[in-house]
Amino acid sequence: MTYVTEHNLTDLATERWSNINDARLRQVMTLLIKHLHGFVREVEPSPQEWFAAIDWLTRVGKMCDDKRQEFILASDVFGVSMLVDALNNRLEPGVTPTTVEGPFHIPNSPEVDHGGNMAEGAPGEPCYVVGRVLDTDGRPIPNVVLDVWQTDGEGIYEAQRQGDDAYMRGVYRTGADGTYIIRTVTPIGYTIPLDGPVGELIQRTNISHMRPAHIHFHVRTPGYHEVITHLFQRGDQYIDTDVVFGVKEPLIVDFKRQPAGPAPNGRTEAQSYFLVNYDFILQRKAEAVAA
Amino acid sequence: MTYVTEHNLTDLATERWSNINDARLRQVMTLLIKHLHGFVREVEPSPQEWFAAIDWLTRVGKMCDDKRQEFILASDVFGVSMLVDALNNRLEPGVTPTTVEGPFHIPNSPEVDHGGNMAEGAPGEPCYVVGRVLDTDGRPIPNVVLDVWQTDGEGIYEAQRQGDDAYMRGVYRTGADGTYIIRTVTPIGYTIPLDGPVGELIQRTNISHMRPAHIHFHVRTPGYHEVITHLFQRGDQYIDTDVVFGVKEPLIVDFKRQPAGPAPNGRTEAQSYFLVNYDFILQRKAEAVAA
Repeated sequence: MTYVTEHNLTDLATERWSNINDARLRQVMTLLIKHLHGFVREVEPSPQEWFAAIDWLTRVGKMCDDKRQEFILASDVFGVSMLVDALNNRLEPGVTPTTVEGPFHIPNSPEVDHGGNMAEGAPGEPCYVVGRVLDTDGRPIPNVVLDVWQTDGEGIYEAQRQGDDAYMRGVYRTGADGTYIIRTVTPIGYTIPLDGPVGELIQRTNISHMRPAHIHFHVRTPGYHEVITHLFQRGDQYIDTDVVFGVKEPLIVDFKRQPAGPAPNGRTEAQSYFLVNYDFILQRKAEAVAA
Repeated sequence: MTYVTEHNLTDLATERWSNINDARLRQVMTLLIKHLHGFVREVEPSPQEWFAAIDWLTRVGKMCDDKRQEFILASDVFGVSMLVDALNNRLEPGVTPTTVEGPFHIPNSPEVDHGGNMAEGAPGEPCYVVGRVLDTDGRPIPNVVLDVWQTDGEGIYEAQRQGDDAYMRGVYRTGADGTYIIRTVTPIGYTIPLDGPVGELIQRTNISHMRPAHIHFHVRTPGYHEVITHLFQRGDQYIDTDVVFGVKEPLIVDFKRQPAGPAPNGRTEAQSYFLVNYDFILQRKAEAVAA
């Protein structure tokens, strides 16, 4: 018979969960108990604070639906999503770094021609993103998929709108010379949702609830590590305080204003537009090297 | 500009949450980030495992309603509820120890006379719980409230039944000599709910999902620390493996079988019954001593 006390409780709980058969579950659960108990022991929550935490978690769960994932948002603002991303993407120096995917990716975007416009009919200033996809030796990689999504010029993603048409997203591919040309509009920064328990928590603080303007990319081709990343606009007022900790320095790019006239895709823009130059660098997978 | 990396991310997140005004929220959030990041760094979850955790938490939230609190159940089976209870109830040696309240307490139970039956019409074997409430010097305390609730003899609480009548609960008071007499039926052990994500997790392991038989008490009177506790039946098959870590040795009591005949409340039982003798010991509050 073991008398449960403040002092032995963590050992008893750890011991119980260390006797389960599934090795990974055993590891995860014993570490969960170690860190969760460590947190509780340092915080010493009152019963009221403990219940406030239970209530907050419950409301986070209740806020989730097909289009809203408030627990991912919590993971984002606590820096956990970026940490999981970092632990799973230990790439070589010089390779384009990854960042969080975020909640707005929609699979199976329409294929768009080289230089085609993925922002047809969307509000915003015209913007071209052009460059190459290279390997770590600087050699162009042909036929790489760039699955691109972003807000329109008013800060709205497809998932936040009515209607079934693809909006502000498209799949591009590099040509034989490794180049790509994307015609879009310039994204703008936006707030995380503030009508749920995560927004409520942030609003009890002076922490910025804004994300800086960015364009999302999945960059993938067989034999290379897929890179899920953003490009951020240099000079954005929220670039130093991204609420989800997503900004990595190599992902900050210049949006250079260009006069009306010839554009990178060979057409003519009737108004001034922004131009972004960026070369993605991909790392070969180890098994591809070995083969 | 700070380039977010695997190595500095915890420092960046801690720093951000260490600049908020509310001192307690600042302490809780920086400790949350420290321990949550520590957990993630030791586990190194794959993206799929991270999402499985997000999904599990979401389903825990969705399972909660007016009668069901799956996050409290999670807190219980991880030993957190008992830890919070222990941290908030550092009582003197010899005082009746506390244990978790559990989800089945209903406030405003009916007052029951000294020796009265709180189990009218309920299935189960007759049971008397008798004793005194004493201070730490062994002096009886009169007029102490004992708010009692438990399962019936089939393992069912009021909250798990249809109907609006009070069931298997009542408020007793000690007499001038500090004594109390409760007539009830013997509780039996029961399983935690297995139809939600916590039950699903437990069922992936060989951990017992049972609670040993017990009777719940709130014991309170002005000037003394309230004791929220259980009495457990010695010899119960689940006493060593309580799924919520609720068992403390001083709370294990003998349920002694008595023959049909005179009962502690002066009436006559037509069948054999169980008798539990237990003296609750309460600790004076510091401010009462000073007054």
